[in-house]
Amino acid sequence: MTPPHDSFQAQARRGELMHADCPSRDVLKHVTSRWGVLVLVILSDGMHRFSDLRRKIGGVSEKMLAQTLQGLEGDGLVLRTSLPVVPPHVEYRLTPWGEEAAALVGGLADWIERTLPQIMAYREANAEAMAD
Amino acid sequence: MTPPHDSFQAQARRGELMHADCPSRDVLKHVTSRWGVLVLVILSDGMHRFSDLRRKIGGVSEKMLAQTLQGLEGDGLVLRTSLPVVPPHVEYRLTPWGEEAAALVGGLADWIERTLPQIMAYREANAEAMAD
Repeated sequence: MTPPHDSFQAQARRGELMHADCPSRDVLKHVTSRWGVLVLVILSDGMHRFSDLRRKIGGVSEKMLAQTLQGLEGDGLVLRTSLPVVPPHVEYRLTPWGEEAAALVGGLADWIERTLPQIMAYREANAEAMAD
Repeated sequence: MTPPHDSFQAQARRGELMHADCPSRDVLKHVTSRWGVLVLVILSDGMHRFSDLRRKIGGVSEKMLAQTLQGLEGDGLVLRTSLPVVPPHVEYRLTPWGEEAAALVGGLADWIERTLPQIMAYREANAEAMAD
């Protein structure tokens, strides 16, 4: 990555997620899409090939996985390396920024997995209260 | 909330976000949808009325905001209180679970806002490298 222009650095400000036109909304979309979350969580464990990612993430299509990786790559969170071998071999891993994002997203994913039993019990209790 | 059945508690296990059929995927969807993230962040500051939420979250429609709140309410993360006054007055606030989720989501939102200037600079440098 080459250093950004001075002019841009002077302009650059903290994002404002509450503003509809702020480009931070795009980053939010890439990082918190269903597949974005799961890609970041898996890449926290280290480098993966496309086919490994696809196998580990239940239900993702080739097209959606490719789009998700492109979004994260465009934001500088994921690094794509294409090795000059036959057959082609493409690897994905987190950049240092990607590791920061993945740690935060991973904390949320872990919370959801841990809390799911209570949430399911809550839903069931509510459904019964409705039926009474 | 009434206590869940023993039978359910015995069944309940940690969620598995990588499994396509795990109900944790629904919770992930509610918590990390664009509007879900922003609703959780705003409710971290305390109780809000529907109209307050709509005003603070740039670009959200009435329908999408209502759907988002219903999803979070169904998971037990947001509490909806309808006060018996004229005109109707409906308040939303976080439950204790909602506060846990909001703290994690808020950490991610804050990271995105802070990191946006670097991400924008990275995108610009990349676009120039392509043009060269």
